[in-house]
Amino acid sequence: MGTTPKSSKALPIALTVIILILAATTLGVLLFLANQPVQTRGLPTLVAIDPLEPDSSQWGLNFPNQYTSFLKMRENAARTEFGGSQPYQKVDADPRLKRLFAGNAFSKDYKEDRGHVYSLQDVRETQRVNEKTPGTCYSCKTANAPQLWAEMGPVAFAKTPFKDLGQRIDQPIGCANCHEAGTMRLIVTNPALEAALKEQGKDWRTFTRQEMRTVVCANCHVEYYFAGEEKVLTFPWDHGVKVEAIEQYYNELGFSDWKHAETAAPMIKMQHPEYELYTADSTHYKAGVACADCHMPYVRDGAVKYSSHNVHSPLLNPQQACGACHTNVDYVVARVGLIQRQVAVTMSASEDALVAAIDAIVAASQNPNADPALLEEARQLHRAAQLRWDFIAAENSMGFHNPEEALRILAASIDLARQAQLKALQAVSTGALQARR
Amino acid sequence: MGTTPKSSKALPIALTVIILILAATTLGVLLFLANQPVQTRGLPTLVAIDPLEPDSSQWGLNFPNQYTSFLKMRENAARTEFGGSQPYQKVDADPRLKRLFAGNAFSKDYKEDRGHVYSLQDVRETQRVNEKTPGTCYSCKTANAPQLWAEMGPVAFAKTPFKDLGQRIDQPIGCANCHEAGTMRLIVTNPALEAALKEQGKDWRTFTRQEMRTVVCANCHVEYYFAGEEKVLTFPWDHGVKVEAIEQYYNELGFSDWKHAETAAPMIKMQHPEYELYTADSTHYKAGVACADCHMPYVRDGAVKYSSHNVHSPLLNPQQACGACHTNVDYVVARVGLIQRQVAVTMSASEDALVAAIDAIVAASQNPNADPALLEEARQLHRAAQLRWDFIAAENSMGFHNPEEALRILAASIDLARQAQLKALQAVSTGALQARR
Repeated sequence: MGTTPKSSKALPIALTVIILILAATTLGVLLFLANQPVQTRGLPTLVAIDPLEPDSSQWGLNFPNQYTSFLKMRENAARTEFGGSQPYQKVDADPRLKRLFAGNAFSKDYKEDRGHVYSLQDVRETQRVNEKTPGTCYSCKTANAPQLWAEMGPVAFAKTPFKDLGQRIDQPIGCANCHEAGTMRLIVTNPALEAALKEQGKDWRTFTRQEMRTVVCANCHVEYYFAGEEKVLTFPWDHGVKVEAIEQYYNELGFSDWKHAETAAPMIKMQHPEYELYTADSTHYKAGVACADCHMPYVRDGAVKYSSHNVHSPLLNPQQACGACHTNVDYVVARVGLIQRQVAVTMSASEDALVAAIDAIVAASQNPNADPALLEEARQLHRAAQLRWDFIAAENSMGFHNPEEALRILAASIDLARQAQLKALQAVSTGALQARR
Repeated sequence: MGTTPKSSKALPIALTVIILILAATTLGVLLFLANQPVQTRGLPTLVAIDPLEPDSSQWGLNFPNQYTSFLKMRENAARTEFGGSQPYQKVDADPRLKRLFAGNAFSKDYKEDRGHVYSLQDVRETQRVNEKTPGTCYSCKTANAPQLWAEMGPVAFAKTPFKDLGQRIDQPIGCANCHEAGTMRLIVTNPALEAALKEQGKDWRTFTRQEMRTVVCANCHVEYYFAGEEKVLTFPWDHGVKVEAIEQYYNELGFSDWKHAETAAPMIKMQHPEYELYTADSTHYKAGVACADCHMPYVRDGAVKYSSHNVHSPLLNPQQACGACHTNVDYVVARVGLIQRQVAVTMSASEDALVAAIDAIVAASQNPNADPALLEEARQLHRAAQLRWDFIAAENSMGFHNPEEALRILAASIDLARQAQLKALQAVSTGALQARR
């Protein structure tokens, strides 16, 4: 019984010691955890990037692999069979283009595009820019744009003259055009794309990452126009992204980019509608393939795997671009070549038909007896035919982004161009009959 | 020492017994082996089939699964979106065909095809056959043909009147059209195919089995014409199987199937050029897929696996037809539908253009002042445009056998048809000018 007091005293002491040890340990663990670095994906973030930072080299401190591959774009000079990165002059290579774009700056200067890293230099050197050019033209040429849109708003950005806005711009296309600093998530930065998606009832914030690997390209690789006096960048997508839907949009608006210098038709200049053609139910798109899967394939540098930011034709690195899905790369490259040649020959026939239509409309215009109503119909057909041809011609894949759709559209273009030619002939013959009466 | 004589006497006796046993065993084994049945692939051959046996039910005794599936063709009545096995009247479904085929029997009767098992009944019931029809028309309608070609030779076969030759014919298309009795290997049976391949420097006897699973279909599923007075079946392949190569062949020969009743143009009726369109570098063909892979896919009946001989549209059994290679059958079926609709809309535009050309040529023909040289050019353009349209229209896949090639050809057809219309208008306007002078 004599041990009971001793035991009842020893128990609280032992308990206190255990509690103190546990408390100290817990404190130590918490202190240790509190001092751990923030979890990162891949490489740790070394420097903080300002929101909307225009300078890609700053982002490159955190993502040296992606930035190094981005810089490699400077070395691209290869020309593929129908495209590539060599800035050859298209109006010299195909003189029919001078007739088709008569009265538009594209008839004077229409160079094949180079990569993102050259965007600022190339837009400043093109002869398509003049004293009247609005700031809008910088929208897709610089990583300064997101910051300037935030500061100025898209309307002030657009209506500032190109040369004035240029004083505030020193970066080509870069990280800030597609990424959110800090999270690096892919985002829509172009207010025109945000608005166009909203018009269709879509919110890109609900999209999956794989969807965004296509949608961010639509920040720029789309057909657009400058709306109203303020020249605000706008995508004509209210009825959808198919060529007929875009035509309907422009027709309802009574819009034209320029008046054709030979036929006086109210024309639309289509601008690189890669996103539209690709997402109009192409086989790759429907199979879930994103733009970035082919144009920014995963590459390895030592043990590190990352998405190449040296964006160019997949025909220049088919083993990486096509080989991730296709086991027989030689086979698929041959397929691409064959399809592009089928599209090219049909596109050429479309140009011949358009030139013939222009000739016929010019002849009818010079004939004082030509029926004016039929001549006007011919001009409208010229517009409809050429916007279809240009939808495929300006789209940078020689139809491969959606081969059947490209050929369907070119067939319609040929049909309409020949009908324009017919209407012009009928304007003359009908007019001659009326004059004789 | 006394045992030696006994041992030396016992040894030869034991040796003799062993040798006798061995000899008897060897003889028994040899007799057993000599009485083994001949090695066969799959089911044992139960009955001997006469070479060129026309009656498929005889072959069916040895190959009951294949024959049973062949007989199932009798039950096919389904119509797909653009084809199938329902014999609907195409000239009623699309009245433009009556104009396009004016003066040709196809303007009166152009039913959708049914399966092989109905070939004899259908050729005897069609209104395209009359008193003057040569025996040639039985070439692809009966399993009696190989035997009759062997007995009569292809010339006598061809020039015997259809109704007389019919007395010797009682079988629809069957086993003997593609198989060699005994070996069951796939063979070219049609002398026209043998000759056409030879002209191209090809010998089908050197082809692989997989190649033959496409080539045997070319016994019939090809464009052909009846050469010379004797109406011998001939394939126009000397320059190749592309539509331009076939056109060149006919133009060099100065051949036409009929004179168009409205425009008086010398026309070519294209006939189901499935083999030509498919092998003109289609993606499936280039990937090594044979006709039989999709149209006669492997099926199971219990534990037995065999190639279905119920030949029909793969859209009626896509799980078997497409699913052997494609994991997402719903995806590929949707693709086929989309592509076929893109081809159908372009084909329809081609028909509209052709009808417009016919109208213009008719109007010019009725104008006494029309320039005859321009009018003749218009007729030649009508011929060129319509043979291209018909190459795709008569081909039974709504373009799917080679989508890009089909759309390329239809675009060219539209271009040429509109040019025919233009030439006819110019014939009138030029003629009017000349008349005024």
